[in-house]
Amino acid sequence: MTDVIMVGTVALDSVKTPFGEVEETLGGSAVYASVAASTFARVGLVGVVGRDFPERHIAFLREKGVDLDGLEIADGDSFRWKGYYEYDMNQAHTLDTRLNVLSQFNPKLPKAYRDARYVFLANTDPEIQMNVYDQINNPKLVMLDTMNFWIENKKDALSRVIEKVDVMLTNDAEARQFFGTPNLIKAGRAFLEMGPKAVIIKKGEHGAILFTGDQCFVAPAYPLENLVDPTGAGDSFAGGFIGWLAKTDDVSPRNMRKAVVFGSIVASYNAEDFSLNKLKTITHEDIFNRYMMFQDIASF
Amino acid sequence: MTDVIMVGTVALDSVKTPFGEVEETLGGSAVYASVAASTFARVGLVGVVGRDFPERHIAFLREKGVDLDGLEIADGDSFRWKGYYEYDMNQAHTLDTRLNVLSQFNPKLPKAYRDARYVFLANTDPEIQMNVYDQINNPKLVMLDTMNFWIENKKDALSRVIEKVDVMLTNDAEARQFFGTPNLIKAGRAFLEMGPKAVIIKKGEHGAILFTGDQCFVAPAYPLENLVDPTGAGDSFAGGFIGWLAKTDDVSPRNMRKAVVFGSIVASYNAEDFSLNKLKTITHEDIFNRYMMFQDIASF
Repeated sequence: MTDVIMVGTVALDSVKTPFGEVEETLGGSAVYASVAASTFARVGLVGVVGRDFPERHIAFLREKGVDLDGLEIADGDSFRWKGYYEYDMNQAHTLDTRLNVLSQFNPKLPKAYRDARYVFLANTDPEIQMNVYDQINNPKLVMLDTMNFWIENKKDALSRVIEKVDVMLTNDAEARQFFGTPNLIKAGRAFLEMGPKAVIIKKGEHGAILFTGDQCFVAPAYPLENLVDPTGAGDSFAGGFIGWLAKTDDVSPRNMRKAVVFGSIVASYNAEDFSLNKLKTITHEDIFNRYMMFQDIASF
Repeated sequence: MTDVIMVGTVALDSVKTPFGEVEETLGGSAVYASVAASTFARVGLVGVVGRDFPERHIAFLREKGVDLDGLEIADGDSFRWKGYYEYDMNQAHTLDTRLNVLSQFNPKLPKAYRDARYVFLANTDPEIQMNVYDQINNPKLVMLDTMNFWIENKKDALSRVIEKVDVMLTNDAEARQFFGTPNLIKAGRAFLEMGPKAVIIKKGEHGAILFTGDQCFVAPAYPLENLVDPTGAGDSFAGGFIGWLAKTDDVSPRNMRKAVVFGSIVASYNAEDFSLNKLKTITHEDIFNRYMMFQDIASF
């Protein structure tokens, strides 16, 4: 029995930042979200890899307690992403994307996953997201992520999924783009009017804003001096957020604020090293310490 | 006797934003800072205008209780700035700058001002800022602002003033530029190492970060749906900040956090209308109400 299922990519990433370079390292939205949430809850991962996928990555995910019944192993090569970050690490530059087995992927949830109470639909084609949504029996909370490509090319299909889900997760540029407004507060409120009970706008180094009803929570980002690789920041945020909700089984606006902070904490640790290297080692105590720090940096 | 003196520009601004347009309206760094601070403290303004400066602006400043013994009236025309903001109102575009009487200005503080305990040196040539600094007898707190032009062209002179002052105020782009790093946390700490007891990095719609010793306060911006004209946001922030410190006569890191919030509140009201129109009408109750809102949006 899993508390949360994460539907998204499992990738082999090659990443270069001003602080170093890694080749064919473990990555992907479902992986970052699953490992981030595994600190708080029992996680099931839904994704696909090819026959070339290294056994050690599978072993690592199992070691983190991630259930892999939803991980399909297909004929062909695994999804690969290659990119780099410059001086200003807010922007990822893609050098190469090889969809490989991902191009044919249309997730079928294992029977046990259909009763999952918490579900994260990471960025992918909104028609696939809807297809997964329809396979879930009676979720307590479904969270959706997307990206500019789908806003540009499949806005109607995307809108239909947004209308169904409980939490809409987006970054600042996407929120502005979706509603054609520079004002993030207007954009956040406009998403709420489409149906979701909560909207989170991620702002990278500037934190995040959570909209619930007519309330707003403006969360700081952790003041990180040692930013090494931002890859997976958004997905580890998502994993920490939904993991905390699943652990406490409380989706009240007040508890969502705490969940945003836990998401930010996991994301901040993640950015301190390449791939999931830092998430491999953090303990409950590390998370608790940074939670205290968050209370301090936000108090006046 | 004044609590705070504000040294900067007094301007006639012509501004266009997506929400309207004003011509030759009251503006300038010393004006925004003075009016913002006047809610909290007795303010003296140091600046220069020409003989063409409208009497009604003088009357307005007096009505707000701003002492004008430091306002020089010189032969010639007043300083004028003309600019506009596009869709994304984070960036001001200058159409025309006429220094006029400002080009000859080298402030001489009235005798009574030399004993001021709180001083704000708004953006200008760092050599002039140093000249003013040297005229102050025994200040409790001096705060400095600057801009990219001086970082590019007079970095040494600017550095000498930074080493003297108590609070360094800068925006995110300037902080990055000064130290050649994209990381604001590194830049904030590097400013502290130059001498100031506190550093504030303003991030526009993303709030501000206050650095004191090894502590950091990450302040949200007020979630403003009704942004009309950002002109003067930084200077009204500065005025609210130093005004609160002067009112309470407490420069502890804890009270500086509150001062950042009061600065943000005044700046948020200011941006809701052109020129100082909104600041003309806000009451202590308005400020108190928004303070409560700030506590709510930051709590988890």
